[in-house]
Amino acid sequence: MTEREQRARATMFSFTLIKKDSTTGSRLGRLVTAHGEVETPAFMPVGTLGSVKALSPRDLEEIGCRMILANTYHLYLRPGVEVIRDLGGLHRFMGWRGSILTDSGGYQVFSLGALRKITEEGVHFQSHLDGSSHFLTPERVVQIQEDLGSDIAMVLDECIPHPAEREYVKLSTQRTVRWAERSLRARKRSDQALFGIIQGGMYEDLRAECVREMIPLPFDGFAVGGLGVGEDEATLRSIGTFTAGLLPEERPRYLMGVGRPEDLIAAALSGFDLFDCVLPTRNARTGTLFTSRGKINIKRAEFSNDPRPVDESCDCYCCRHFSRAYLRHLYHAGEILAAQLHTIHNVHFYHHLMDKIRQLIRENRSGEALDIVL
Amino acid sequence: MTEREQRARATMFSFTLIKKDSTTGSRLGRLVTAHGEVETPAFMPVGTLGSVKALSPRDLEEIGCRMILANTYHLYLRPGVEVIRDLGGLHRFMGWRGSILTDSGGYQVFSLGALRKITEEGVHFQSHLDGSSHFLTPERVVQIQEDLGSDIAMVLDECIPHPAEREYVKLSTQRTVRWAERSLRARKRSDQALFGIIQGGMYEDLRAECVREMIPLPFDGFAVGGLGVGEDEATLRSIGTFTAGLLPEERPRYLMGVGRPEDLIAAALSGFDLFDCVLPTRNARTGTLFTSRGKINIKRAEFSNDPRPVDESCDCYCCRHFSRAYLRHLYHAGEILAAQLHTIHNVHFYHHLMDKIRQLIRENRSGEALDIVL
Repeated sequence: MTEREQRARATMFSFTLIKKDSTTGSRLGRLVTAHGEVETPAFMPVGTLGSVKALSPRDLEEIGCRMILANTYHLYLRPGVEVIRDLGGLHRFMGWRGSILTDSGGYQVFSLGALRKITEEGVHFQSHLDGSSHFLTPERVVQIQEDLGSDIAMVLDECIPHPAEREYVKLSTQRTVRWAERSLRARKRSDQALFGIIQGGMYEDLRAECVREMIPLPFDGFAVGGLGVGEDEATLRSIGTFTAGLLPEERPRYLMGVGRPEDLIAAALSGFDLFDCVLPTRNARTGTLFTSRGKINIKRAEFSNDPRPVDESCDCYCCRHFSRAYLRHLYHAGEILAAQLHTIHNVHFYHHLMDKIRQLIRENRSGEALDIVL
Repeated sequence: MTEREQRARATMFSFTLIKKDSTTGSRLGRLVTAHGEVETPAFMPVGTLGSVKALSPRDLEEIGCRMILANTYHLYLRPGVEVIRDLGGLHRFMGWRGSILTDSGGYQVFSLGALRKITEEGVHFQSHLDGSSHFLTPERVVQIQEDLGSDIAMVLDECIPHPAEREYVKLSTQRTVRWAERSLRARKRSDQALFGIIQGGMYEDLRAECVREMIPLPFDGFAVGGLGVGEDEATLRSIGTFTAGLLPEERPRYLMGVGRPEDLIAAALSGFDLFDCVLPTRNARTGTLFTSRGKINIKRAEFSNDPRPVDESCDCYCCRHFSRAYLRHLYHAGEILAAQLHTIHNVHFYHHLMDKIRQLIRENRSGEALDIVL
């Protein structure tokens, strides 16, 4: 296949760059998949096991989410990809009408440490659930995601730990590029986009080398991986901004797994379009709630009589109906409803933050986004 | 106050007997509170701590629930009645627009066993949460429920364990009647109904004696307590039917805490109007789901590939959107969404069961209700 033919495979997928804010590197885009449109920059809530924890699909729809992320590694192990495929794919399985991006499982597999072994062919690992042995190759990972039927699939990569020796980073990144080429050759579905992943650790020249080798490949978009893995904030920002600046303008850019509100703002200003992170959902379950005046910990005694909503400027279901005092009570009583309401609020907060960023880009005022988070 | 004046206290409360099905003892009624109408026979989901576990108020509204139960004992201990009162009462606290019945805490306190001591004046007990000492009297229990602002309050009674010696049952029941009289004298709110509770253990003559002493009292309704405490099913049925038959027709009858589907049907046919039980919500969280073809345990391997909804004849949110395979996956993965969806289904099942019973009564066919549950 020619590159043009390759790119044309994802017939249901397109990305349109609507405008750039010349005062920063930020951009406004529209991503179209077989399951609808997504305005970018956009944040994808994480639905690890086919459920964004504590939210129903209609909660997500009400918040306005149009795309979520699901984890290939977790779904592959449980309930198993055949189960999901035979039930009509992941969208139908989880009752979600919007778009889905599946990661490749690379991050999860490589986080297993001693439980995995990498070869040129692929990665051997043992399940964190039952210790069973598995072998994943770039080809198999594409096939799994095609069976899941996500709208955007990711190639298998190695998420390099930090710190890492330059020589290892170089060899690993080169292998990730070879795996990316194998992934493209393994594609069969025409209704699924495939994104390449840029690695290169904290070395700008290795990031640049990876980009040079990847951009000629007919990927539908590019992700930047291997950030948010323990490096300091300045390094995260500088490597992120540097790498985004090298990526082709006409294809979407996804910064993987990085997701404090201030990170999303900085990354959007650098020209990233897509984000995911477990932070809003995980924090919700431990009672840490995002507000326009900073985070609050709903567990604290100061909220025991507080009649105010979590955030007086928020119009989510939680803030429209419930007081901090009630939420604190639910949390301390161990009520499941606490997790539900807190998650609705935090995911709404993230969604609304992206709304604000897009509006500022639209008005060529994206630099002001830095003032959103206190 | 005269009896008439006493009864007029609950100005926002009325019960209208709409029709009786002469083929059984069943009746159709309409209960009106300051928070709306409830068609009876009706089932009240249990919201122990101010939350029907795993459901939001809008889930309950969507199902069609008009009245829930909340537990005075639990709310008194946590978050404390002053917190709820100062935040505008229980309805506002929990964001619930429908009606609320609060129990008196009698059942919970008497379940504490060695942690409580009964005197004529009231009951001393230690909190199951922190061991702190408390003393509740009939008067205090009325005041607590008035502070909570429920639509229907219950008097403090002793829920007699089973088996129990006749002499103890007699003395305890007589004390419950004296406490009932004290409860009536303690009332201050005019917008809250107060129900008396019939005790008498498994002795028909003691039940009859209790009823004789209670029905002259100006209660807005009567509950039958002390059933479903370990007696066999035949005894539950016979004491329930016997006692219901002695109660005045024009006031609502509430069978406390008894709630398998077959129990609700039998009790409705005996002329009971209100029910509550933790069964649908608790079973939901352990994966036991009610269907028109009997209960299923969603954990079982047989459902791992099952594309069908829990109940093909059910139109709840869970059954409209999700397969047994997905629900089983969520359950085994420990996803919070499993509890949410299962609870929506089970509470909907109970609500729909009561719908069917009311329809059969309307058509003088209530005897056929015995065929509903397989």
